[in-house]
Amino acid sequence: MSSTPGLSTTKQFRNLLLSDQLEFICEAHNGLSAKIVQEAGFKGIWASGLSISAQFGVRDNNEASWTQVLETLEFMSDATTIPILLDGDTGYGNFNNMQRLVRKLEQRKIAAVCIEDKLFPKTNSFIKGDAQPMADMHEFCGKIKAGKDAQSDPNFSIIARVESFICGWGLAEALRRAEAYRQAGADGILIHSALAVPDEILAFKQEWGNRCPVVIVPTKYYATPTDVFRQHNFSIVIWANHLLRSSVTAMQKTARTLKEQEHLLSIEDKVAPVSEIFRLQNAAELQEAEDRYLPRGAEDTCAIVLA
Amino acid sequence: MSSTPGLSTTKQFRNLLLSDQLEFICEAHNGLSAKIVQEAGFKGIWASGLSISAQFGVRDNNEASWTQVLETLEFMSDATTIPILLDGDTGYGNFNNMQRLVRKLEQRKIAAVCIEDKLFPKTNSFIKGDAQPMADMHEFCGKIKAGKDAQSDPNFSIIARVESFICGWGLAEALRRAEAYRQAGADGILIHSALAVPDEILAFKQEWGNRCPVVIVPTKYYATPTDVFRQHNFSIVIWANHLLRSSVTAMQKTARTLKEQEHLLSIEDKVAPVSEIFRLQNAAELQEAEDRYLPRGAEDTCAIVLA
Amino acid sequence: MSSTPGLSTTKQFRNLLLSDQLEFICEAHNGLSAKIVQEAGFKGIWASGLSISAQFGVRDNNEASWTQVLETLEFMSDATTIPILLDGDTGYGNFNNMQRLVRKLEQRKIAAVCIEDKLFPKTNSFIKGDAQPMADMHEFCGKIKAGKDAQSDPNFSIIARVESFICGWGLAEALRRAEAYRQAGADGILIHSALAVPDEILAFKQEWGNRCPVVIVPTKYYATPTDVFRQHNFSIVIWANHLLRSSVTAMQKTARTLKEQEHLLSIEDKVAPVSEIFRLQNAAELQEAEDRYLPRGAEDTCAIVLA
Amino acid sequence: MSSTPGLSTTKQFRNLLLSDQLEFICEAHNGLSAKIVQEAGFKGIWASGLSISAQFGVRDNNEASWTQVLETLEFMSDATTIPILLDGDTGYGNFNNMQRLVRKLEQRKIAAVCIEDKLFPKTNSFIKGDAQPMADMHEFCGKIKAGKDAQSDPNFSIIARVESFICGWGLAEALRRAEAYRQAGADGILIHSALAVPDEILAFKQEWGNRCPVVIVPTKYYATPTDVFRQHNFSIVIWANHLLRSSVTAMQKTARTLKEQEHLLSIEDKVAPVSEIFRLQNAAELQEAEDRYLPRGAEDTCAIVLA
Repeated sequence: MSSTPGLSTTKQFRNLLLSDQLEFICEAHNGLSAKIVQEAGFKGIWASGLSISAQFGVRDNNEASWTQVLETLEFMSDATTIPILLDGDTGYGNFNNMQRLVRKLEQRKIAAVCIEDKLFPKTNSFIKGDAQPMADMHEFCGKIKAGKDAQSDPNFSIIARVESFICGWGLAEALRRAEAYRQAGADGILIHSALAVPDEILAFKQEWGNRCPVVIVPTKYYATPTDVFRQHNFSIVIWANHLLRSSVTAMQKTARTLKEQEHLLSIEDKVAPVSEIFRLQNAAELQEAEDRYLPRGAEDTCAIVLA
Repeated sequence: MSSTPGLSTTKQFRNLLLSDQLEFICEAHNGLSAKIVQEAGFKGIWASGLSISAQFGVRDNNEASWTQVLETLEFMSDATTIPILLDGDTGYGNFNNMQRLVRKLEQRKIAAVCIEDKLFPKTNSFIKGDAQPMADMHEFCGKIKAGKDAQSDPNFSIIARVESFICGWGLAEALRRAEAYRQAGADGILIHSALAVPDEILAFKQEWGNRCPVVIVPTKYYATPTDVFRQHNFSIVIWANHLLRSSVTAMQKTARTLKEQEHLLSIEDKVAPVSEIFRLQNAAELQEAEDRYLPRGAEDTCAIVLA
Repeated sequence: MSSTPGLSTTKQFRNLLLSDQLEFICEAHNGLSAKIVQEAGFKGIWASGLSISAQFGVRDNNEASWTQVLETLEFMSDATTIPILLDGDTGYGNFNNMQRLVRKLEQRKIAAVCIEDKLFPKTNSFIKGDAQPMADMHEFCGKIKAGKDAQSDPNFSIIARVESFICGWGLAEALRRAEAYRQAGADGILIHSALAVPDEILAFKQEWGNRCPVVIVPTKYYATPTDVFRQHNFSIVIWANHLLRSSVTAMQKTARTLKEQEHLLSIEDKVAPVSEIFRLQNAAELQEAEDRYLPRGAEDTCAIVLA
Repeated sequence: MSSTPGLSTTKQFRNLLLSDQLEFICEAHNGLSAKIVQEAGFKGIWASGLSISAQFGVRDNNEASWTQVLETLEFMSDATTIPILLDGDTGYGNFNNMQRLVRKLEQRKIAAVCIEDKLFPKTNSFIKGDAQPMADMHEFCGKIKAGKDAQSDPNFSIIARVESFICGWGLAEALRRAEAYRQAGADGILIHSALAVPDEILAFKQEWGNRCPVVIVPTKYYATPTDVFRQHNFSIVIWANHLLRSSVTAMQKTARTLKEQEHLLSIEDKVAPVSEIFRLQNAAELQEAEDRYLPRGAEDTCAIVLA
């Protein structure tokens, strides 16, 4: 386990955000994938809005309600001990919804939330981004302030995601907004870009300096060497949707093979054994617990009588 | 799409159950995997209790509530048009819970439910099966009757899963129970076995004949040639947990690679592109709908003013 | 029971909307109050947004998620056979959320939804109404069209609630919007007013004539004789929040009495007996069902052994 | 507010349980009624299983899932600052379900849970109690132990409800079980009786002495003077369902009056004004928050344009 025993998840996340080396967190979209991220050694989890909506089978346009997302987060939190950063869309409404969200996240030990300066209901940033309206900057600052005022754990973090590049507004607007959000209380800035090259985010970081930590999501500019991010002193890199995408590829292949071959023989060795599923579910712990809490022969109490 | 347009999912499932050829249905555990099963050409979906609990990150011991399972089923149903057979554990309680379950399933267009003759809370059949108590046979018959009386669509199906082999009671008891369940109204029998060979289920089918359709789950006796099942006139073969298991393998590998390499380059080509996720979410339909329902320039109405 | 056997709830509601006499529906906010409305002889139920949020203990500002409201509606629908008209706020988002909402309502046998031309998240109309922004009229028309296109039952109804008076825009704007909403497909118009006299709604109806049915909510102009509404050919009067309000008064009084007296004697005769609660829950049906589905002596199967 | 600022709800409840005077807690069944209990001056809330199921419109037989109950509890907890004792039926399953329940309750700041020694799914104690089977005593002790081991807050309390009188087993069995439950770790005993006189609970208390706190529910023996309970050193008296019952009476009367009179005039003065509902929802706080977090004129940003 990569979590530090005793450290709250909020403090763990704050440490990642403020550490002087480049940190990495990885997407998960349910309790199972969250556990897999932790077991791989990551120090944090990105609860991706795209991935969570996709696993439900709905679109990344607030089709699932915020409480349905919250329930998924609770399973993810229960299955892990490392911090979870929620991709919280626009905060699911105005400053009041944001306050309610922050309280509910804290209750479920979610370490941090990232909100973006677009309008509810949102559209994924990679779909016609330049046709998407942005939130009023002052209204969004109020939302950040409201969120910060709502948290009870001082280490809970709010990351402000600047969509200026996505929506076609350019560097000056990105900087203007990022600075306003920082002053409103944001603990970090996520600067997003849909280009295949890192030019936008590098230009931003150049001007931004080290005013506060900057988080990036290199989904589109994936070919950029990681050392470039290191040299520019970014704080956290998010691998934003790759577990979901790898699971889709695997499930599609398995489903097609099963359909064609009508047999398990060529599948069985390529997939995790049932025992590995049991292990991920922590089935062994239950068996120990049964020894501890069930009276001997208790199962027989209600057993069938073969009349 | 493999569904027959116009046929209700309940009728589609009934047709599978009664068809004179061996049919196959495949496990899914959320809306996304359900859609993948349908796109692969399967005619039906197995909503696996093991897989659904595993994706939540909890154990297959009724740790997730039945309404949490129901919500997952609703997403699965919304994402597909082929019938879904729910692995309904013990019906989540007694005959009264079963009646409520059937009504809720019909409301969400779930075509059928399979219940097993064990006690609530259940344990997965592959974990210490022979230490597990079975339900009272008469009580279980009442549960089947209650379920059948509760359905409003005559084509909704209830499959009775006989756990006699799993719990170590042998063929005679399996046959005695299966016959009682059939007489109580079960539309089919699922005969389960944890052996690596098909001996138990073949012996059962030999004696059972064609009294009513028999469904099997060859997870453990996976090496058996499918033609053996065909020759014995089984009705449906369930590939019970292989999409989940293949997704685990893929996600573990991706997570480890990302952790080690701190880079996406070796991942990007091996996982589904983001555009494939958008396609599975039916994002294109929304863009068409926007043209239809949003006034031209509507996005601008609330757009930012750069003051 | 006041419902017509065999008539779908959607058809029942359509009949109310189109009947040539003044009809009345009454607020409910959970399964229990819904049943009480039906037992009192009402032909329909108003699932009030104010009351549902209030019983949760949250504000009428979309603090409860739309799926939490949906779950409450499902309990209300399960407990009754008369039609339910949901007070659906703004449709909980844009046209796309509206389409999803309509499908989910139909699934739960909700007969109709009323949406208002304000912005998400909404504020109750009786709180600083004149400071509240209205929705863009064309955008709202698109939402109505989208809702109508999404319904599968032709009798499902969408009522467009015009907030022009509430927001201080006057008669001309109210008529302009109502007509646009009618042309967009609304099955009826709800014209709302916060005045203590019915002047606004009467002026509206005068001009509107009988273009399509008009629904009113006389919470503030409660002193108006009902015959005035009859003479003006309104379609449906909604008693919008009075069960909740009467329950608050009763519960506050009971709680205070219990606190002061530390005794039940003066309470017992003034509250419904426990047997009445059992009756409302339909406990008798379960006892009959036990005779039908439980084997004789089944309760004993698992009974304790006094060792 | 009757809560002590700064004291956790778990500690508040522990203080009630251990105080040397007779304490009283009152039933609530949703966020609204919970707030009413607190405002009346009570120091604690009984989250009644009967009342919660009744407000849903379902029976007190575990028809609502445990997570649906949990969601109701979360609203109740959010609306109050005094401790909530959950009427937790049988723990909704076995020791493992109990452990999960305790963790989920702690997360939502529920102070304590009471579980009864019957079988899942349960039946209300006032319905054919003597035909109801009891749980195996040793199995129930394991459930208590498991619950105590699962709690992370040392002040979280588990009350063991002894149903021996209800199920017709008499005093000796009640004492035997209570002692076993105490030794298994129960923080208090709830001794239940369906008699119209307090004989059973007094006899129990006589023998029990002060081994640990004893809680009672005088729903049936309501005529007993409260001083009798004081003299016998009971710990807490629960007014178990009276808010719900008074709300039913009030709502039935209001609904009938509205149906008959088709007018609000005779209702308006007898029910809480809308402003009182707003007060209970804390609407004023939102208006202050809007001043704090919304930019001046922000409402206008998206206001309509009268084209």
